Amino acid sequence: MSVNRLQISELAAQLRIDSIRCTTEAGSGHPTSSMSAADLMAVLMSNYLRYDWHDPHEANNDRLIFSKGHASPLLYSMYRAAGMISDEELLSLRKFRSRLEGHPKPHRHDGAIDDQHGLPWIDVATGSLGQGLPIAVGMGIVGKHIDKLPFHIWVLMGDGEMAEGSVWEAFDKSSFYGLSNVTAIVDVNRLGQQGPTDLGWNVEAYTKRVKAFGWHAIEIDGHDSKAIDAAYQEALDENEKPTCILAKTVKGSGFYLVADKEGWHGKTLSGDQAADAIKELGGERGLAVSVQKPKCSAPSAQRMPTVLKLPVYEVGTEEATRKAFGDALAALGAANPDVMVLDGEVSNSTYTDLFKQTFPERFFEMFIAEQQLVGAALGMSVLGKISFAATFAAFLTRAFDQIRMAAVSGASLRLCGSHVGVSIGEDGPSQMGLEDIAMMRTIHDSTVLYPCDANQTSQLVKEMAKAPGISYLRTSRGKMPVIYRSDEEFRIGGSKVVRRSSNDQVAIIAAGITLHESLRSFSQLQSYGIRARVIDLYSIKPIDIETLHEAAQDTGGNLVVVEDHWADGGIGDAVLDAFTDMTTGMPSVTKLAVRSMPGSGTPQQQLSAAGIDAEHITQAVRLCMRAKHRADISWSVKLL
Amino acid sequence: MSVNRLQISELAAQLRIDSIRCTTEAGSGHPTSSMSAADLMAVLMSNYLRYDWHDPHEANNDRLIFSKGHASPLLYSMYRAAGMISDEELLSLRKFRSRLEGHPKPHRHDGAIDDQHGLPWIDVATGSLGQGLPIAVGMGIVGKHIDKLPFHIWVLMGDGEMAEGSVWEAFDKSSFYGLSNVTAIVDVNRLGQQGPTDLGWNVEAYTKRVKAFGWHAIEIDGHDSKAIDAAYQEALDENEKPTCILAKTVKGSGFYLVADKEGWHGKTLSGDQAADAIKELGGERGLAVSVQKPKCSAPSAQRMPTVLKLPVYEVGTEEATRKAFGDALAALGAANPDVMVLDGEVSNSTYTDLFKQTFPERFFEMFIAEQQLVGAALGMSVLGKISFAATFAAFLTRAFDQIRMAAVSGASLRLCGSHVGVSIGEDGPSQMGLEDIAMMRTIHDSTVLYPCDANQTSQLVKEMAKAPGISYLRTSRGKMPVIYRSDEEFRIGGSKVVRRSSNDQVAIIAAGITLHESLRSFSQLQSYGIRARVIDLYSIKPIDIETLHEAAQDTGGNLVVVEDHWADGGIGDAVLDAFTDMTTGMPSVTKLAVRSMPGSGTPQQQLSAAGIDAEHITQAVRLCMRAKHRADISWSVKLL
Repeated sequence: MSVNRLQISELAAQLRIDSIRCTTEAGSGHPTSSMSAADLMAVLMSNYLRYDWHDPHEANNDRLIFSKGHASPLLYSMYRAAGMISDEELLSLRKFRSRLEGHPKPHRHDGAIDDQHGLPWIDVATGSLGQGLPIAVGMGIVGKHIDKLPFHIWVLMGDGEMAEGSVWEAFDKSSFYGLSNVTAIVDVNRLGQQGPTDLGWNVEAYTKRVKAFGWHAIEIDGHDSKAIDAAYQEALDENEKPTCILAKTVKGSGFYLVADKEGWHGKTLSGDQAADAIKELGGERGLAVSVQKPKCSAPSAQRMPTVLKLPVYEVGTEEATRKAFGDALAALGAANPDVMVLDGEVSNSTYTDLFKQTFPERFFEMFIAEQQLVGAALGMSVLGKISFAATFAAFLTRAFDQIRMAAVSGASLRLCGSHVGVSIGEDGPSQMGLEDIAMMRTIHDSTVLYPCDANQTSQLVKEMAKAPGISYLRTSRGKMPVIYRSDEEFRIGGSKVVRRSSNDQVAIIAAGITLHESLRSFSQLQSYGIRARVIDLYSIKPIDIETLHEAAQDTGGNLVVVEDHWADGGIGDAVLDAFTDMTTGMPSVTKLAVRSMPGSGTPQQQLSAAGIDAEHITQAVRLCMRAKHRADISWSVKLL
Repeated sequence: MSVNRLQISELAAQLRIDSIRCTTEAGSGHPTSSMSAADLMAVLMSNYLRYDWHDPHEANNDRLIFSKGHASPLLYSMYRAAGMISDEELLSLRKFRSRLEGHPKPHRHDGAIDDQHGLPWIDVATGSLGQGLPIAVGMGIVGKHIDKLPFHIWVLMGDGEMAEGSVWEAFDKSSFYGLSNVTAIVDVNRLGQQGPTDLGWNVEAYTKRVKAFGWHAIEIDGHDSKAIDAAYQEALDENEKPTCILAKTVKGSGFYLVADKEGWHGKTLSGDQAADAIKELGGERGLAVSVQKPKCSAPSAQRMPTVLKLPVYEVGTEEATRKAFGDALAALGAANPDVMVLDGEVSNSTYTDLFKQTFPERFFEMFIAEQQLVGAALGMSVLGKISFAATFAAFLTRAFDQIRMAAVSGASLRLCGSHVGVSIGEDGPSQMGLEDIAMMRTIHDSTVLYPCDANQTSQLVKEMAKAPGISYLRTSRGKMPVIYRSDEEFRIGGSKVVRRSSNDQVAIIAAGITLHESLRSFSQLQSYGIRARVIDLYSIKPIDIETLHEAAQDTGGNLVVVEDHWADGGIGDAVLDAFTDMTTGMPSVTKLAVRSMPGSGTPQQQLSAAGIDAEHITQAVRLCMRAKHRADISWSVKLL
């Protein structure tokens, strides 16, 4: 591709000017971080990017991720230059209800991008640094190893974010998977938010690192359009390794007042300063750039989804829900060729290895790199794959920021965390998922599922595959009795009343391992003449408000919640929340949960020590019944 | 140091044997991961480690971190060889209430290690991989730049954890701070949990990476005691760079059946296999190793703490709580030379730069690397420093696993997250802390504070400096009115009733920005003749149960909670939790919180769109009063 130098420099000037104009109009934003990368993006969109703006969901489109999301003014200026947004809309940057938010965001609803209120050309929200490249790894795998399409993934990164570990997880995995379809463009402008970056303009140091991680590296002057052009061509010509272009740039390049000056991060020019800058840059322009259409290539012959045959477990046998998760994944994989599975080097614990054994070409090992694990799953998901990512629930906390940002993207993400709660036993608290429900509940619009039985697990995994948004399955280490028939259905947002009578005095609400402890307690309570309802609250979010309200009403507001999770943020909190915004007063809720730091011990010792086994449930129910009785008595006394 | 080859090989055999014995006895654990590093640890403890076992808190002691925490059997075998635990105790591994848990854990109570129930020779809990080196960075800074003591920090790492980004954040920062007192020993045994690691025995690849990150690197055969010895000496002789020893080892080394075999991760030998192994290794022994005492060196002359003079803000003026946090840090720094501050490259946003300007020698920039930020703060804390780490609340989610593990350590950790909630305005959701309360509440034994005023912030920062455990301060971006006098006290676990009458009809519970919105609503409600109590719940955890119960009683159980956070896991859930385990039922609670994904907009537009501004509070209170009224009427009708 030959460089049209005039057009490039004109376009670059326009991108700088527009970045200045919209941020000055907004009174906030990051013009200088946009200006440093203007030449890089001008060459990219003029000569290399292959993109059908009118069909952003076209599978052959290149992908452009602004990992340095704060350079959004530059991205929006590109949209204007591509004729996709008007100048008026450009100037709506950061205004209430504008699509052009402070940081790029696609606006999805129910998994689909809202093309009117959102920006259909953005695949993933950015703004938390170091997340673009891990996502590109997922996209790169789809392009290179799954759909085998010639599209390229371009990631614009800041030099500051090279300090994020997540970036190095991605450098590692990209080379491991030979993702020559990924190009990282690092805008080395030397200045972070509060001053110089760690490595400043030591581009050589970055090059060494990137090369050591198995990448092809090219150092260029990021304002030399000929050099930029050559670098992009070199990146496209490289067929084995991913390419990292380390572009030495000047922050605020194009306007003397801000160029390479500290103190200008996230700061806008005043009206007068903007006018000066626009003058220095040669005045406003309205260039329209025509971007090349994608190389048309049909996705490799796709097998169509077939009927899903879920595994069947006999009632009365025993199985671990983590094993059932693996079985269900393998079944899903057989039914649908779009199902992909990723794991964080614990596939023999999460049981994703059951999928791997059958569909090795759709299983991707992310090794011990949970941020990359979630990032890659997200990258696959936004390209239309049904990706499941699994590791120990405890270690999913490592990717909380990535999960949070996936929710900002409105994307679908399917996660499984195994080895939850104290009931894992001897390994101790470092391996116990005790915060995962709290983490996943607080994620916007999330689905949090916690099965107690193998058949239930199958059904829930099937539901997850269809669910938009962030869904999470919590699986247990130990075998548990199969209590549900394989033809029972479990919908997201539902629950199962496992024991009930017409005059229950108390309702025990549980999920996972504690459901089984509750069933044991049920029998113990029977021997004391206490009639307990037992509710399996397998869908923690959304929650089955109706069944909970009914239980409160039927039992005179006598609820006991028991969970293998810390007391804060778990099932107890979810149950309490179901009774907010009520006018008639709330039930009495007793929360049994983990409250002291566990050590090692057998699962049963752990459950007992945490006070969440059958014996403790029984004790708690009896105590609260007695207290209730006393309260009722004192209440009658008051009435007298 | 000359190598006593006989002793070393004898000791290494004993460490292997003991690792096998205790895991076989336990029936679980990781013998093969211990065996690969036995020679490395035998040489270390015989010839290099300087440690006073009887005074583990001695400032001159070397520090040994088993970042590969699953090799705990090896660590405990070293304790036995050092004569610190009996053989009987060794064999209690993984048993209920044993100090020797599946993964190393110090057992602290109120910040101090419980020497009886805990292991005083462990500084930090491990078991979540990739966390040891970031913690060593904090320790290295203390040794090299603060106390200027000659102790050395040895970190035993697995090759699998080299895939974790946190490790590369630490490699980067160690070289940046010239931490020649840190040595990473990487046990490259080629095998992870489910199969070969990413790089296998490609030791050269690791070496390239580590060197590119500015480290001195040494490749050795990890079973050649002479080579190991020379490498340690070389590490100690290196005065500028940290040293990484890349030791090629054999997993399960020492016993033919398991050596370099897949499928043996986290698997124990049967009794017969163990007997064979012990025979192959030359039989049980009871060597006692005398470890060198630390080089005695007095810490550099320390200034003693002086009286703390907190900044004073006039009631009626305006200030941002993030600014008050910075002011308070500077005041703390002046009073106490042990106060250290770290930031994630946003010090001009969190205002830690106010500390940095006054005490640059005690401020440590961690750049955009939040896992490292928290790791370093923890490393400093366990060496007795009062370290505060700050970044945007949204980005602290990046370090959730590190925070969780700090709680497992029982360590003290002081965190500040700024820019919370939708009220940050135009930057959009990627920058908004909307999950931080949920994250920090679910951390075991944590303290979660959320001030609404500058003087309150000062007092709470003062309290944090004294508090054991994990404490978290949530600060806001915008200026807010100063409503409290500087001599008011705010204790952890308290609250302030800001408005009250003798016959309040409703209590509005808020903190931070929503407290001010609640005060505006209070006036609006007055005009409707509604008497509202307003409670500033600045201590979200622990929570002031008494004041909440009183409010419920006084208002007939009419509570409205309003918060700038997602509805799940936030202040509303904390308030509801305060009414569990009661016999009399709960109050009616209305939760106002963020429920839809925000975009850009002014702070006031955001508060309004989220339904948490004064107008929405007023509306909610009126609605719930009317509903309550209706409910009361229908209740009376029923009674008739």
